[in-house]
Amino acid sequence: MSKKGPLTPDALHKIDAYWRAANYLAAGQLYLLDNPLLRQPLRPEHLKPTPVGHWGTVPGQTFLYTHLNRVITKYDLNMIYVSGPGHGGSALVAQTYLEGTYSEIYPNVSQDEEGMRRLFRQFSFPGGIGSHCAPQTPGSINEGGELGYSLAHAFGAVMDNPTLIAACVVGDGEAETGPLATAWHSNKFLNPVTDGAVLPILHLNGYKISSPTLFARISHEEVEDFFKGCGWTPRFVEGEDPAQMHQKMAAALDWAIREIQRIQEGARSYGETERPRWPMIVFRSPKGWTGPRQVGRKKVEGTFRSHQLPIPADTAQQETLTQLEQWLRSYHPEELFDEAGAPAPFLRALSPQGERRMGANPHANGGLLLRELRTPDFARYAVDVPAPGAVEAEDTAELGRYVRDVLKLNQRARNFRIFAPDEIVSNKLDRVLDMGRRWDAELLPGDEALSPDGRILDGMLSEHMCQGWLEGYLLTGRHGFLNSYEAFIRIVDSMVSQHAKWLKVAGNLPWRQDIASLNYVLSSNVWQQDHNGFTHQDPGFLDHVANKKADVVRLYLPPDANCLLSVFDHCIQSRNYINVMITSKHPRPQWLTMDEAIKHCTHGIGIWQWASNDQGVEPDAVLACCGDTPTLETLAAVTILRKYLPEVRLRVVNVVDLMKLQPHTEHPHGLTDEDYDVLFTRDKPIIFAFHGYPSLIHELTYRRHNKNLHVRGYKEEGAITTPFDMRVLNNIDRFDLVIDTVKRLPQLGNRGAFLIQLMKDKLVEHKQYITAHGCDLPEIRDWKWNGGAGI
Amino acid sequence: MSKKGPLTPDALHKIDAYWRAANYLAAGQLYLLDNPLLRQPLRPEHLKPTPVGHWGTVPGQTFLYTHLNRVITKYDLNMIYVSGPGHGGSALVAQTYLEGTYSEIYPNVSQDEEGMRRLFRQFSFPGGIGSHCAPQTPGSINEGGELGYSLAHAFGAVMDNPTLIAACVVGDGEAETGPLATAWHSNKFLNPVTDGAVLPILHLNGYKISSPTLFARISHEEVEDFFKGCGWTPRFVEGEDPAQMHQKMAAALDWAIREIQRIQEGARSYGETERPRWPMIVFRSPKGWTGPRQVGRKKVEGTFRSHQLPIPADTAQQETLTQLEQWLRSYHPEELFDEAGAPAPFLRALSPQGERRMGANPHANGGLLLRELRTPDFARYAVDVPAPGAVEAEDTAELGRYVRDVLKLNQRARNFRIFAPDEIVSNKLDRVLDMGRRWDAELLPGDEALSPDGRILDGMLSEHMCQGWLEGYLLTGRHGFLNSYEAFIRIVDSMVSQHAKWLKVAGNLPWRQDIASLNYVLSSNVWQQDHNGFTHQDPGFLDHVANKKADVVRLYLPPDANCLLSVFDHCIQSRNYINVMITSKHPRPQWLTMDEAIKHCTHGIGIWQWASNDQGVEPDAVLACCGDTPTLETLAAVTILRKYLPEVRLRVVNVVDLMKLQPHTEHPHGLTDEDYDVLFTRDKPIIFAFHGYPSLIHELTYRRHNKNLHVRGYKEEGAITTPFDMRVLNNIDRFDLVIDTVKRLPQLGNRGAFLIQLMKDKLVEHKQYITAHGCDLPEIRDWKWNGGAGI
Repeated sequence: MSKKGPLTPDALHKIDAYWRAANYLAAGQLYLLDNPLLRQPLRPEHLKPTPVGHWGTVPGQTFLYTHLNRVITKYDLNMIYVSGPGHGGSALVAQTYLEGTYSEIYPNVSQDEEGMRRLFRQFSFPGGIGSHCAPQTPGSINEGGELGYSLAHAFGAVMDNPTLIAACVVGDGEAETGPLATAWHSNKFLNPVTDGAVLPILHLNGYKISSPTLFARISHEEVEDFFKGCGWTPRFVEGEDPAQMHQKMAAALDWAIREIQRIQEGARSYGETERPRWPMIVFRSPKGWTGPRQVGRKKVEGTFRSHQLPIPADTAQQETLTQLEQWLRSYHPEELFDEAGAPAPFLRALSPQGERRMGANPHANGGLLLRELRTPDFARYAVDVPAPGAVEAEDTAELGRYVRDVLKLNQRARNFRIFAPDEIVSNKLDRVLDMGRRWDAELLPGDEALSPDGRILDGMLSEHMCQGWLEGYLLTGRHGFLNSYEAFIRIVDSMVSQHAKWLKVAGNLPWRQDIASLNYVLSSNVWQQDHNGFTHQDPGFLDHVANKKADVVRLYLPPDANCLLSVFDHCIQSRNYINVMITSKHPRPQWLTMDEAIKHCTHGIGIWQWASNDQGVEPDAVLACCGDTPTLETLAAVTILRKYLPEVRLRVVNVVDLMKLQPHTEHPHGLTDEDYDVLFTRDKPIIFAFHGYPSLIHELTYRRHNKNLHVRGYKEEGAITTPFDMRVLNNIDRFDLVIDTVKRLPQLGNRGAFLIQLMKDKLVEHKQYITAHGCDLPEIRDWKWNGGAGI
Repeated sequence: MSKKGPLTPDALHKIDAYWRAANYLAAGQLYLLDNPLLRQPLRPEHLKPTPVGHWGTVPGQTFLYTHLNRVITKYDLNMIYVSGPGHGGSALVAQTYLEGTYSEIYPNVSQDEEGMRRLFRQFSFPGGIGSHCAPQTPGSINEGGELGYSLAHAFGAVMDNPTLIAACVVGDGEAETGPLATAWHSNKFLNPVTDGAVLPILHLNGYKISSPTLFARISHEEVEDFFKGCGWTPRFVEGEDPAQMHQKMAAALDWAIREIQRIQEGARSYGETERPRWPMIVFRSPKGWTGPRQVGRKKVEGTFRSHQLPIPADTAQQETLTQLEQWLRSYHPEELFDEAGAPAPFLRALSPQGERRMGANPHANGGLLLRELRTPDFARYAVDVPAPGAVEAEDTAELGRYVRDVLKLNQRARNFRIFAPDEIVSNKLDRVLDMGRRWDAELLPGDEALSPDGRILDGMLSEHMCQGWLEGYLLTGRHGFLNSYEAFIRIVDSMVSQHAKWLKVAGNLPWRQDIASLNYVLSSNVWQQDHNGFTHQDPGFLDHVANKKADVVRLYLPPDANCLLSVFDHCIQSRNYINVMITSKHPRPQWLTMDEAIKHCTHGIGIWQWASNDQGVEPDAVLACCGDTPTLETLAAVTILRKYLPEVRLRVVNVVDLMKLQPHTEHPHGLTDEDYDVLFTRDKPIIFAFHGYPSLIHELTYRRHNKNLHVRGYKEEGAITTPFDMRVLNNIDRFDLVIDTVKRLPQLGNRGAFLIQLMKDKLVEHKQYITAHGCDLPEIRDWKWNGGAGI
C-alpha cells in the first residue's frame, strides 16, 4: 500500500487505519446492539431488532473528515465541517467519537467498550439519535434532514471570521436542489481580507435514493465548465482504490489549502483586489465505498442499493449474519482499538488536538463565541408625536436610522449584518446603505453603495441565500436580521421550519450555548399594493410560524415607528427565538410617543384609552386591531362611530405581540383568561381588524370565553388598486368596520340602520371615485385622527 | 440604418418600426390617460395622476418578441413566449395588442384610438391590469410576480409537445433565485423525439431593483462556461446600437432555430441518441433601452434607475412633461399607427397570423387543448376487505397499480405524467416504474427503469422543479400529479400560493379554459418516522393550502387504500383545483370495501356505524378521526372503551374531505350547521384525532355550535422513535384518546377513574418496553380491530 503521492508509506498506513476505524464505528452504529468490538463471534442477539439507517454517503464522508484532519494538523487550521448530504450523521458521530469530542460532550458514551456499545445502540433507536447531522452532533451547524442549505450555511459561518475555513461537503443529490444550485455564486460576496474561506467538496457518489445523480452523469468537461462558470477552480479526485485515493486526496487538499492561503495572503498583504477563483474539489467515490460489493445477486457497493442498509436487516438468516460479520471484520477493529476499547494510541496521535478538532471547534457551537450587541438608546431615534395621529412617518425609514447606528457601533466587532434579497431600498431601509452593500464581483462607475466590505448582504435576489447565510451567521455566534417583502418570505417557509426545529432541539442540549434570535423585518406588506398586486399579497407567514413550538416563536405587528423601534431593539437582543416583525414603509399616522410605545410594547397588548370612550364602564363593543393598516382603519371607524353614535361606549384594543392572544398555558406570552376578559370582556362584541388571514385570530383565541368575535382580515381579494380599495375589497376598511360594529348593537335601532346606510353610500362613492380618478377620495387620503376632542 | 447581417435594409427598417411601435405602446401604458397617439401637445391632464409601473425590462422584451415573430413567420414555428422577468407585463400587453390578439380577447380594447386610450388607462389603474405577466395576459403561462419559475414552466410546456418551442426569457435577477439556478439542468429530461424545445434567452440587462446582477458582473468566460457546464450551447448578442442589435439577434435566432431543427431531425429521422447541447442565447442590452438617457443629473438608461418609471411622476413640472413628450415622440407614433389609430398596414403584415401569433397560441391557454383522461374503472383495483380491519395493505402501493394503468391507457395520448423528487420508490409507488423514469443523461449498466422516454419525472431532487414542470404541463392542457414526502412539499409553499392565485384569477376570465387540477399525493407523512425523524415531520401543508380561496382548494385524507383509490380517481378528473391527498405507505389495516369507500368518499365525512354503539340514541361522546394514523388509533381506543365501559354510547366519525368541517357558506364542500350537528351533536364531547396541527381543526370549526371539541394532533414532538411512540409523544395514541374521552364523561365516576389509571399504566409499560427493546409492544404491533363482535 504505497502509491505515489505526498503521503509516506507510514502516513498512508495510518491515515487508512484512521479511516477504517471511522468506517467501523459508522457501520457498527447501523447494526450492533452489543459485542461492539467483535470480540466474540457475531450472534443474532448482538444485532438490533430492526436496524435502520443509511450507509451510502458515510464512507466518503469519513474519508474526507480523516483527510481534513491531516491538513488541519499540518497547517494548523481553524476549520469546521459542514455535512450536506442527508443521512450522513453516523459518519460525523463516528469521527467525533474517534477524536474524543463526542465523549467529552456525552460522557456516558465513553471511549471504551461500554461507551462504544452505547454509541452503537443509541443510533436510530427510540430516544436516541437520527441518521442526519443534527443539533446533537458535535461540530455541526447544518441539519441533514432537508437538503440544500449546506453551502449557504458554510458561507454564513465564514463571514467576518477571517481565520476560519468551512469545509463543506455537498451531496450530489443535494446539488440538484434550487437553493444549493444558486449557492455556488456566494463566492461573489466573500471578502478575502475580512472573511474566511469556504472549501466546497462536491461528493459525487452517483446515486440518490433510487436514481442516479445528474452531476455524476454529465461529462467531465461539463462538470469542470460548470464550476469554472460559477467562479471556482475545480480539482478532481476520482477513483475507488483506497491507497490511490488517499494520495490523490492528500495532494488535492494540500493544493486547496495552499490556494486559500495564497489568495488570502495576496489580498491581505499585497492588496490584491481581483475576485479570487477559490479552490473546490470534485470527489467521485463509490456510493457505500468499502461496504459489501454484492449481496445476493445484486451489486451493492457503488449503486443506489447502498443508500440505506447495504445488508438487509433480516438477522435470522445465517448467511446475512456471516456476510455482515465479514464486512465488519474487514476493517480490523482489533488493530484499531486498544484493550479497553479506546482508539489505539497511533490513531489518537493522528487527530487534531483541543479546539482544532472539528467536533470541538467553538464556531460550530456559536453561542460560545457570542458577544452582546452594542446598541444605541433606541429612544433617541423616537419620532416626535405631540398627539396621536398628529404626524406622519415611514416606519421602516425611521428604523433605518437606528439600524445604521447599530451597524456602526458594531463595526469593529464585525458581528452584525443585514440580509435582504435586493429589497433594502424598496423597503425604505436605505439609510443603512451608508454601511455599504457587499459586492465582490465587478464594479462599474455609477454603482451606488457597493463595497467589497459592505455590511449589507442584499446583492443576491434569493430569499434562500439570505436565509441560509443568516442562519450560518447566527449559528456561529453573530447577530443579524433578514429584510424581505412579506409575501415572498414564504419562499423560505421550509427553511424557517427547520431552523425552528433546530432551536427546539438545541434548547434541550445543555452544551449548546444560546445564539442570537433569527429576526425578520417584513415590509411591503399585503396592504401596500401600489404597483404590485395579487402575487405580492400573502400574510400567511404569520400562520406558518405560529404553528411552531411556542418556546421559539414571537410575532410582532408594531402599529407605528416608535413601537417598531421598541420591538426591534428587543428582538435583536433576544436569544434562541424566531422573531417576526411585520412593518409598514409608507407615510402613516404615528400614534404613540416613545414612552407610550415602550409601555405598550412591553405589555404587548393594551387598551388605547385616548381612542376609547368606555372610561369607567364596560364597553358596548370592543374594536381590536393588529397591524398598521388595521389600526389606521379601526381608528377611522372609531371617529365615525363616536361622531354619529356618541352614546355607544367603545373600547379600542391594539395588539402588538400576537401571541398575547393565546392562552398562557399555550405560549409564554399568552394572557391568562382573566386578563383577556378584562381587555375583551366576556361577551361584548369584538370587531377585530387583523393584518393577516382572519382564521389565525380564531385559531389563537378559540379557547377564550368571549365567542362574540368578528374578525376581518385579508381574504385573497384585490389586485392592482388603491391602498384604500384593497381594504374595501377585504372588508377591513373603516366603513365596513362601522357596519360590522353597528350590526352587533341591535339596541341602536334606527340610528344604527341610518349609519349603516350612510356607510354603504360611502362605499359606493368610493368605488365611483376610484374608477373615475384612479386614486382614493380626498377625504380618505387626507383623513386625520381628530384627537378625540372634536368628536 | 443598414449594418451587416441577415436583414435587408427594408427588413431592418420594418423590424425596427415594429419594435418602436411596441415600445411606444408600453411607455404609453405607464403614463397616458388620454391623447394616446400624441395628436395634441402633451398636457398635464393627459397624464395619469399617479403613474406607477416598470420600464427596465420592457424594451428588451419587446425587442425579443419582435424578433421571435420574425422567425415564427420565416420557419412557420409553433412557439410560445414565457416571460421570466418580473414587471415586464406591459411588453407582452403591447405586443399582443400590436398583433391583434389583445383586441380579440378584450374587444373593448380595440385597435383604434379609443382602444389605445383604454389600453393605456387600464394599466396599473384600479380594476385594471398589473405590471406583471398574469393570467389576464394573452399568451402567458407564467406569472411574473414571484420570480424563479419561468424555465421550469417552459420545460413543462414543451413536454410531450414535439412541435412546440417555448422561447423563455430569463431575467438576470430571476437567474439568481434557487429554482431558476437549478432549472438549467432540465435539459437532461427532454427527449428530442417526443418533446418540443426550450429556447432560453438570458436577458442580461444588468440591474435588479437597486443592485447590479451577478451574471452581468462576472466575466464573459464565466458566463459561457456556466452555460456549457449546464449542457447548453450559448451564443451572445450584446450591444446597444439598435441596428447592429437587430442584425445580431436575427442571426442568433436563425442559428438557434436551425440548431433546434438539426437536433430534432437528427433524433427523429436518424435515431441519434446522444444528449443534445441545445442552443441558448445570452442577450445583453441596456436596462430601460431607448428610454431617457439622463434625467436631471442622473444617468437613467442602462442603470437601475430605469427599473420603474424612468421619468418621475411629478406631472406638475413642465420640464418633466417636455422630456416625457420628447421621449414618447422619439418612437414616431405618427409613422406607426394609421388614421384610426390602428397599427399601420406594414406592421400588421409583419406579425405572424392566426394561432401562430404568440398571444393566440392555444398552448398558452391550455384548456383549449385539454382532452379527457382515460381512466380504468378504479373499483377493479379494490383491496378485498371482508370485514373492517381484517386485512392489511400499503395504500400507496395499491394506488400504484391503478396509476400504472392510467399511464398505460394514456400512453398514446401522451398527456399524463408523474413528477417526484426521487421519491417514487420510497413512497412505494414503484409499480408505476414499468412506465419508465425519464432520463436523458448518461445511462450505465445496472440502471433500473431509466429511459429517455419514461413517463415518470423523478430524476431530479428538487421539489421546485417537480412543481414548476407540473404547472407548465397542466397550464398547457395536460394531466399529472406530484408525489412527495409530506414534510418537504413545504419547500414549494410559495409556488403553490402563486398557482392558487393564478387559478382564482383565471377562473374569472371567460376566455381562459378549464385546466386539469394540480394534484398532490403526499406520503411518508408525519406519523411514519422509522429512520428519518424530526426534520421529516411537518403536516402544515394542509394549513397552508386551507388558507387559499375556497373555490380552488380541496384537502383529502383517505383512511385506507380503497378510499385513496376513490379520492385519487376523483381528483385526477377534476378541473381548476388544488387537490391535496395525504396518504399512508406502510402496511395498515383496511377498513372499507370499495362500495363503502366510494360512498364514504362521496359524502366526504360520515359515521362509521360498524365502529359505533350509539344506534338509535344520541351518543355520550363522538370520536372523530381524520387521516390514516388517527383513524387507526381512534378505532383502537374504541375497542378499549367498549370493552371496559360498554354502557358508554360512542359514535365514530371519519373525515376524508377536510373542508366538510367548514361552514357551507365558507367552502362549497362545507356542511350546513344542521348536517354538522347531526354528525357531531350540539354539545356532546368530541375527541378529534387529527393528522396535522390541531389548530387547523379549530380554525375550520370555530363557527360551529358544538364547542365541546378536543383535538389531538401533531405538536412538534418526537424524533427517532417507534411508530407508536410518535403517537404517544403527541398524545394521539389510543391510551391518551381513551383518557381524553373518559375525562369528559364525569358521570362514569370510579369506573372512569379506573380506566384512566389503566391507560396511564399502559403508557408507562410502553415506554419501558421501547427503551429496552427498541420496538413497540407486541400487543401494539399485533393489534387488530376485533370486528365489534367480541367487544
